[in-house]
Amino acid sequence: MTYSVVELIEAKRDGKKLDSDQIAWLIDAYTRGEVPDYQMSAMAMAIVWRGLDGDELAAWTRAMLESGDVLDFSHIPAAKVDKHSTGGVGDKISIPLAPLVAACGVAVPMMSGRALGHTGGTLDKLESIPGFTTGLDKERFAGILAEHNLVLAGQSATIAPADKKLYSLRDATGTVPSIPLIASSIMSKKLAEGLDGLVLDVKTGSGAFMKTLEDSRRLAGTMVGIGNSYGVKTVALITSMEQPLGNEVGNASEIRESIDVLRGGGPADIRELTFALGEVMLELAGIDGGRDRLQQAIDDGSALQKFIDVTRAHGGDTTVIEDPSKLAVAPEEEHIAAPTDGYVTRCDAMTIGAVATRLGAGREKVDDEVDPGVGITLLKKIGDQVSKGETLAVVRFAEPQRWERQRSHLQTAWEIGADPVDPPGLVIDRIG
Amino acid sequence: MTYSVVELIEAKRDGKKLDSDQIAWLIDAYTRGEVPDYQMSAMAMAIVWRGLDGDELAAWTRAMLESGDVLDFSHIPAAKVDKHSTGGVGDKISIPLAPLVAACGVAVPMMSGRALGHTGGTLDKLESIPGFTTGLDKERFAGILAEHNLVLAGQSATIAPADKKLYSLRDATGTVPSIPLIASSIMSKKLAEGLDGLVLDVKTGSGAFMKTLEDSRRLAGTMVGIGNSYGVKTVALITSMEQPLGNEVGNASEIRESIDVLRGGGPADIRELTFALGEVMLELAGIDGGRDRLQQAIDDGSALQKFIDVTRAHGGDTTVIEDPSKLAVAPEEEHIAAPTDGYVTRCDAMTIGAVATRLGAGREKVDDEVDPGVGITLLKKIGDQVSKGETLAVVRFAEPQRWERQRSHLQTAWEIGADPVDPPGLVIDRIG
Repeated sequence: MTYSVVELIEAKRDGKKLDSDQIAWLIDAYTRGEVPDYQMSAMAMAIVWRGLDGDELAAWTRAMLESGDVLDFSHIPAAKVDKHSTGGVGDKISIPLAPLVAACGVAVPMMSGRALGHTGGTLDKLESIPGFTTGLDKERFAGILAEHNLVLAGQSATIAPADKKLYSLRDATGTVPSIPLIASSIMSKKLAEGLDGLVLDVKTGSGAFMKTLEDSRRLAGTMVGIGNSYGVKTVALITSMEQPLGNEVGNASEIRESIDVLRGGGPADIRELTFALGEVMLELAGIDGGRDRLQQAIDDGSALQKFIDVTRAHGGDTTVIEDPSKLAVAPEEEHIAAPTDGYVTRCDAMTIGAVATRLGAGREKVDDEVDPGVGITLLKKIGDQVSKGETLAVVRFAEPQRWERQRSHLQTAWEIGADPVDPPGLVIDRIG
Repeated sequence: MTYSVVELIEAKRDGKKLDSDQIAWLIDAYTRGEVPDYQMSAMAMAIVWRGLDGDELAAWTRAMLESGDVLDFSHIPAAKVDKHSTGGVGDKISIPLAPLVAACGVAVPMMSGRALGHTGGTLDKLESIPGFTTGLDKERFAGILAEHNLVLAGQSATIAPADKKLYSLRDATGTVPSIPLIASSIMSKKLAEGLDGLVLDVKTGSGAFMKTLEDSRRLAGTMVGIGNSYGVKTVALITSMEQPLGNEVGNASEIRESIDVLRGGGPADIRELTFALGEVMLELAGIDGGRDRLQQAIDDGSALQKFIDVTRAHGGDTTVIEDPSKLAVAPEEEHIAAPTDGYVTRCDAMTIGAVATRLGAGREKVDDEVDPGVGITLLKKIGDQVSKGETLAVVRFAEPQRWERQRSHLQTAWEIGADPVDPPGLVIDRIG
């Protein structure tokens, strides 16, 4: 069956519903290059305008998913469960979480992304471990997963190529902020991983893509609906992204902080979110014990050992895990001082993420290079009491001229008030 | 100044206003190929969604107009006034109207289009006069106008190239039905003609692009606003397009009907609309006398002589004007008979136009060839009394197999009721 693309665009433009055959044809024809970008971008804008309903969304996601490889790990006995975060600043949760739940018996075929814009990327963080390879072919991916119940890789080009093509187009045509398009983009990649369960960490707040709780709930509900309609048990936690997660923003430094968590330490918010998401992953995998089981895997060293084993399997230098001081540190250091006495009322994730990126910890453009040693260590976050002149953050960088352009901007990230405030809640809601 | 196209698309998507510098840059960059089609189509869909306000529309039209040649006929002493119709079936009004008002002293630098879809095109009609050339360079166009106060040509490729490019893109991306985009497309071409005045014939009804009176009024008001803001006195008549205009739908047959009007005959609706539009053109040119002056130009033969003279100037065979029976007639003829006694309540322009096109009088695709002898002669229109078996229409065609596929469709164009009905009013409103 062949359709007239113009008629499909007109139907969506006029608020009509597309059927699943039309959607399957459109996505396939677009992926094959038969439908040109200029028609797909008009369709994308019509979808930003009119939306997609539940049936359309299921069909759209399935069509993107089926544009590429769909992995099958049914030969691995453990339940396959992954986590996906919609992206935040200092969000290294995958790194302690995946080994932790894998040590408890969950199989985690994790595919992650790279830093772009103000948010970091798990792959860049992992690659600050010397030798750690994240680009795996299908066989090696499946092999590491089968042996360790854990693999931490980049998304292969053969997963959801329709999404890859459409995402680039949306980025260039002002058609990114559409909940159905965002949800189907994320889910088409995750559902190709051959999962039994999926936990979604949907960020909300000024440092998140979704600024309002209402939009975050809608995105979460939309993704949970897609996952469940595809037969993958899906749960979303809505979590706060006003200030960075943990104390470290940077690649090597976030690995250090992750190792602290696996050793039983680390900042309270990182521990809390790791446990909250881990608990859901155990539940989806049908493994009893909840937080106690997770704590046990930390206490007995099996979580850390899992990270060491998987690092070795990925070709990484495991000695840096045993001695994290061997990880990269940029040569220059500057401090940000509190301008006044009081309580931190704001520690803006967006600003801190943007500055870290511009210092070299992330990418403004996809082909920028990342410097693993660049980072910002936050000593004061929302709710902390400070004295005038006290250090709010330590900044590490390699290029002083970059820092000079960012110094005054970074200072605007903090606000200090006279009255005590509570730190923001972390896990706001659970959907599914 | 250079802008980020994505930011301009996002602004329009979010319902914000673009300023005139942004619009001028966008149209220019698109025309030069610097902004790709896939971004412009997303912008076009955002405009279908959000619209353009008066300032944006004036800037958009001016930018398209200034993408090409702007003609200047200030050396011709007569006031330059043109007419544009939004397109209908049987709409040959330009052909009697232009010589008629030119004979009264108006200079008419008319640029017309070709048949496409269910509507005919003035150029195709004129070319059914053997030798009549409508493709003129700028010098010849100006020369014929200076000598005869009249020229009847196709739009040159150097007029509003931005519109040409954008129109093709809109056609392929479901972004045609936007009143600001339609209005700016029409007006950017017309305002390049170096006019003092412009009368717009905005069709309304089932056979028109604008189906509702409300939309037709909005389009008319929008175009009148653009014209006046550009300093060209602009008036729109809203006219009915439920049934075809006149009795002839076809190329050579519409020339015959036009000659009848110039000789003082022709169907009442064609005479009425020619006079209504002509009256406005005289008014805009500052020529007194109104309908009496027009009638005089028919009575004294000067209107017909003007058509003969301009035909000769275009290289056309003027003997067919003196003897219209020499114009092409397709070889085959069939009659459509009334299925019952009664009164014609419907004589559907859209159906009749589509059948005439498919028989060869028009084009379904831009590169189709037109057969000047193909046509449908309407013997009964809305309000006429008919007896069962009486002929409603005579169809002339060259290819019987095409006719066989259209016969049953054409029959659905008429509806016959038991009670007398009035024919629809023709000129519904004047705007400006």
